[in-house]
Amino acid sequence: MAPMRLKLICCEIYFREVCRLVSESAHTIDLAFTPKGLHDLGADKMPSAEHYATETNPVLGLRSIRYCLQNLTMFKAQLRAILRASRLGDIRIMFPLVSTLQELRQTRMILRDVMEDLDEDGVEYNPKVPIGIMIETPSAALTAAMLARNCDFFSVGTNDLIQYTLAVDRANEHVSSLYSAAEPALIRLLRSIIHDANKAKIGLSVCGEVASDPHYIMLLLGMGVRILSLAPPMIPEIKQVIRSVTIEECNHIARKVATMDSQRQIKNYLRDTAIKILPEAF
Amino acid sequence: MAPMRLKLICCEIYFREVCRLVSESAHTIDLAFTPKGLHDLGADKMPSAEHYATETNPVLGLRSIRYCLQNLTMFKAQLRAILRASRLGDIRIMFPLVSTLQELRQTRMILRDVMEDLDEDGVEYNPKVPIGIMIETPSAALTAAMLARNCDFFSVGTNDLIQYTLAVDRANEHVSSLYSAAEPALIRLLRSIIHDANKAKIGLSVCGEVASDPHYIMLLLGMGVRILSLAPPMIPEIKQVIRSVTIEECNHIARKVATMDSQRQIKNYLRDTAIKILPEAF
Repeated sequence: MAPMRLKLICCEIYFREVCRLVSESAHTIDLAFTPKGLHDLGADKMPSAEHYATETNPVLGLRSIRYCLQNLTMFKAQLRAILRASRLGDIRIMFPLVSTLQELRQTRMILRDVMEDLDEDGVEYNPKVPIGIMIETPSAALTAAMLARNCDFFSVGTNDLIQYTLAVDRANEHVSSLYSAAEPALIRLLRSIIHDANKAKIGLSVCGEVASDPHYIMLLLGMGVRILSLAPPMIPEIKQVIRSVTIEECNHIARKVATMDSQRQIKNYLRDTAIKILPEAF
Repeated sequence: MAPMRLKLICCEIYFREVCRLVSESAHTIDLAFTPKGLHDLGADKMPSAEHYATETNPVLGLRSIRYCLQNLTMFKAQLRAILRASRLGDIRIMFPLVSTLQELRQTRMILRDVMEDLDEDGVEYNPKVPIGIMIETPSAALTAAMLARNCDFFSVGTNDLIQYTLAVDRANEHVSSLYSAAEPALIRLLRSIIHDANKAKIGLSVCGEVASDPHYIMLLLGMGVRILSLAPPMIPEIKQVIRSVTIEECNHIARKVATMDSQRQIKNYLRDTAIKILPEAF
């Protein structure tokens, strides 16, 4: 089994703490621009941030990598901190909410700038630190083949991807019943992202609630997903599911789901299959 | 040339006015749930509507068909009015913001209910009134093949489609520079919607700012679009562009754009091509 990965947030002022964690930890650490991090100013996070007050639809607003690219001093300080930590362990950098190849190129250019600054200052770092992106907008999903040729790994952020694909704010009680991972459109997008990542031979993981939902695990495995980003309390349950099924069973489930045309049908099928294959777990 | 189409909004109280317009008009009339209509409560329209006050992201909230499906008394009154008008002219019904096949099926079921009510009341209507939907969420675009088998025409709402695909609120000055129709992801979605509509042999039109932008007309024609929903002041200019180019030129442009990987490249190419082919118009 691959070593467990931890995700950490990081900026210059946390540098000492990050170094301690990296050097003491037995685990691989994704020192990442995570959804929980300062760098991924999700619309539902830090609502007190100054510009949010003026945004009518913060979920479609200035957040995550967009915020970073418009606040270069802060962004460069964070990149510098991650790069300095990168010589101490298995560090990788992941950028959130990248929607277009242009944005990824711009981000990589800034990263190169910061590397050059470190070179000039004689500061050590890992020049081959792997660079990944979150795939969480339909736009990124639809251009995954191009993006995959320009980075080292994908992390599919299903929560946001579902939200944008269906145009449904999952935090809005008036429409949250429309929010579902079992939508044919989402299954089709996921399938195409996985295909593009495999074709470009880059890593892919899935995060978001779907990855921690036992009903979806067999489907994800059947679609080719092999790395899941889990909520820690769910690890034992998901492990149990994975150990109880064969890949052939999962492949069969994925093939069946691909033929279905409604959320209700997919949801019922996944529930029934889960109960049939794993009566003790559900 | 096909007769010019007008779009009207309609509800029971406007019934007399609608009948007058339909019977007096020389034009075909799409008596539609249009983006400008009461029925398509766009997030940027009628911001005083009660529930909007509680929505953090109205663009991803309770609007358009979602609002109708949760307010059946109002919705049925509107459908009844449109159906009553349908025996007077070339009336069609178009539902906005349909995101899933399930939603379309639910909507059609309610329409059948209203038709049965009219039958019982002995009120005349056209039982074959054509039913169409707006394709304006990535979800609808990705499942267009399934949706096309369940309706008579598509109207591609590019403004919202771009917005959701890129996760960019075009009314937000902090990110509006990221909003563009020239994104490879959008071109790919458009191509696939057009393909699915053609395969199912249903009509397709394109509305939104793109349809009124001379730079995009040749691309749209080359991708197979033949009906455009225009802002009236743009009709002479767009007519001029269409009359000045051949379909072969347009096809060539569409093939070229399909190979491009960035918004900047596509935008520059469309601008340069427009100037080259139509120096007098640009």
